Amino acid sequence: MAETTLFVHDLAAAVSPRGSGPLRGRDLGGLQVHSPASVAIAGDRVLAVGAPDEVLRDYPPRPDCETMDGRGKVALPGLVDCHAHPAFLGDRAAEFELRSGGASYEEIHASGGGILSTVEATRRGSEEELTAAVRRHLAWMLEHGTTTAEAKSGYGLDAETEIKSLKAITNAAKGSFIDVSPTFLGAHTVPPEFDTAAEYVGFVVRSALPEAATLARQADVFLERGSFEVPEARRYLEACREHGLAPRLHADQFSERGAIPLAIELGARSVDHLENTGDAGVRLLAKSNVAAVLLPACGLFLDLPLPPARRLADEGAILALATDFNPGSSFTESLPLAMNLACTRLGLSPAESLTACTANAAHVLDLPDVGRLAPGYKADVLVLDAPDWRYLAYHLGGDRFAATIKAGRLVS
Amino acid sequence: MAETTLFVHDLAAAVSPRGSGPLRGRDLGGLQVHSPASVAIAGDRVLAVGAPDEVLRDYPPRPDCETMDGRGKVALPGLVDCHAHPAFLGDRAAEFELRSGGASYEEIHASGGGILSTVEATRRGSEEELTAAVRRHLAWMLEHGTTTAEAKSGYGLDAETEIKSLKAITNAAKGSFIDVSPTFLGAHTVPPEFDTAAEYVGFVVRSALPEAATLARQADVFLERGSFEVPEARRYLEACREHGLAPRLHADQFSERGAIPLAIELGARSVDHLENTGDAGVRLLAKSNVAAVLLPACGLFLDLPLPPARRLADEGAILALATDFNPGSSFTESLPLAMNLACTRLGLSPAESLTACTANAAHVLDLPDVGRLAPGYKADVLVLDAPDWRYLAYHLGGDRFAATIKAGRLVS
Ligand SMILES: [Zn+2]
Ligand SMILES: [Zn+2]
Repeated sequence: MAETTLFVHDLAAAVSPRGSGPLRGRDLGGLQVHSPASVAIAGDRVLAVGAPDEVLRDYPPRPDCETMDGRGKVALPGLVDCHAHPAFLGDRAAEFELRSGGASYEEIHASGGGILSTVEATRRGSEEELTAAVRRHLAWMLEHGTTTAEAKSGYGLDAETEIKSLKAITNAAKGSFIDVSPTFLGAHTVPPEFDTAAEYVGFVVRSALPEAATLARQADVFLERGSFEVPEARRYLEACREHGLAPRLHADQFSERGAIPLAIELGARSVDHLENTGDAGVRLLAKSNVAAVLLPACGLFLDLPLPPARRLADEGAILALATDFNPGSSFTESLPLAMNLACTRLGLSPAESLTACTANAAHVLDLPDVGRLAPGYKADVLVLDAPDWRYLAYHLGGDRFAATIKAGRLVS
Repeated sequence: MAETTLFVHDLAAAVSPRGSGPLRGRDLGGLQVHSPASVAIAGDRVLAVGAPDEVLRDYPPRPDCETMDGRGKVALPGLVDCHAHPAFLGDRAAEFELRSGGASYEEIHASGGGILSTVEATRRGSEEELTAAVRRHLAWMLEHGTTTAEAKSGYGLDAETEIKSLKAITNAAKGSFIDVSPTFLGAHTVPPEFDTAAEYVGFVVRSALPEAATLARQADVFLERGSFEVPEARRYLEACREHGLAPRLHADQFSERGAIPLAIELGARSVDHLENTGDAGVRLLAKSNVAAVLLPACGLFLDLPLPPARRLADEGAILALATDFNPGSSFTESLPLAMNLACTRLGLSPAESLTACTANAAHVLDLPDVGRLAPGYKADVLVLDAPDWRYLAYHLGGDRFAATIKAGRLVS
């Protein structure tokens, strides 16, 4: 039997989504809570979580085992950010100021600001500069409890910069304590060099996809007016799927235009945003196996309508929650903040919010062994410096960790 | 002439509200920006802020002067939180969960939860426990850049616990790097021991005010249905004013009931909340010398209507911004977060938001020598680890300080 290598004892509680796989319906908010609790870790895996005397009896720490006093603190699974855009250079501080004065995101986009200004800055930088930026962004995420994150390309929109972005993500991941799942967002928007979305999709599939597919695990498209409509999104995602990349979609953010039926048709892993999804879309998505990823910080930055989170949850959707970290529409790397917004603005409970950015987010990224604090799972564990796990959502801006454990190693 | 004791050189920028005293109208968003900049400090005062070569020439650091490399970073005045309730024990995590499921704050209050549950926990604790709690809360604030904070009592509502709270605040302040301005909020709500608000006000004025007035600088009342109406608020604040405490009011949060005329009549320092202030109230307040304190994090936690921030600013109100840090309706100690919400939800610009939680917040607390990064002001300086000062509002949850300087001393 594996021997305990790290032992966190006498926690006020240890909390995890129950079961296995994605959770939905009533199970969405169903947490396993041990209180008090100890956690035994062996190598990079969780060995046991349970009552302190039982864990101590069954998995006693050897003399050379690292131990930690958990009194007054709570353990949770490391957070999983399943929708993030950390591969960019430059910033959009000036645009943030413009928007505070009333300019809309779509107006800024139309005037050459928005995504395209980040594309310019990202194209100009070297692979080394971009790697350093991704590394910095991953470090920020880790400070807020994220131990696994998606990282999308999508600020290149030419073959060279898209590949440079995916390489920067891969390089930065190597030196990081965060496990990174790279996503090829070659279809983020249509760059100015192309007249039509169809031409650009043809180009990107031909020129960037073959190499991108060797670097990424998933593919993503922005299905929206002014970007890509259903035919181009289908073409892009089908080509990516043939190269082994799992399809995902940014959709229903500003308008509904057929993304959910397309996602279901393609067997997509998720549809993300959903601020403008109507009742029919909610029902369709909720009974499918496509996850619904909500991005409440983006909604805050852009003053979007609130997505139908409660209806999605009640109808049984596989609900996930992410930061949408990016310099324009959601400049925050904090999943605890997204959890707070999910509770304060979207009507999700703290427990539902936790499942949404742990077990269900891991499902979106197709990482079945992360997102739970349970035997056999990867030992990504947060020790929150608070007496109640709900502080993670409740104490806004107050997510302070006594310890962050990644794959069984104390990393902070 | 004073000698430079701390020298921060070659900053990307140094930023401060202009002028002196409170700013309003067009001046609200008028910042003084030096870029690049150096800052010279002598003892606990700012000596000079300006172009690096000029500051170096006029205020050269001596060999024993502490110096800091500011390249790639920006300096700002330390933040001033002019509305905070750090003197409490216990938490309201369960209530946060209830509210995420749809229960309203007023429903929770009516069922014996809300403020009264915190009153119970605060009454039970010792002065030492409460001091430790205030100290912990002040330490959290400092991490988010607050160098001066108000601290209200108000979770006692009996003579003993109100005095215990003000003593805990005073004790905690001594060991803290934050300058604390204590406020006697004896009229937070009517405790269950009293049948009417009038009886309770009579009691608290008689039994707690004389000693409270030796510990506090300002007085505050919660003017709201179910708490105190205009006659009791007037009686409480007039009595407090006779004892030397400057009047302030929590008002117009759930309903308008005459707070603004009362505030003007009494020469109050501020009216705080204002989520339900109508046009007439906006105009009246804007042309008065009573500051309007906005608390957008509370609005987020309680899903309140948005206060008429833009109209107040445009009509010329002395606008301030604060956290309302408390365990029930705003469990956040982060002013940068309040600034972000002011920009994303209230239509204030980053510059207006900065003035609102520095110079104008200092005015609310009657502390004329804090809230600016300018010669002669107290040397409370933040060195933000970002290339643009607007990141303070723009990078949500990303407020990371390379240094925090309090009264000329590097404290982190
Ligand atoms: Zn996105
Ligand atoms: Zn308050």
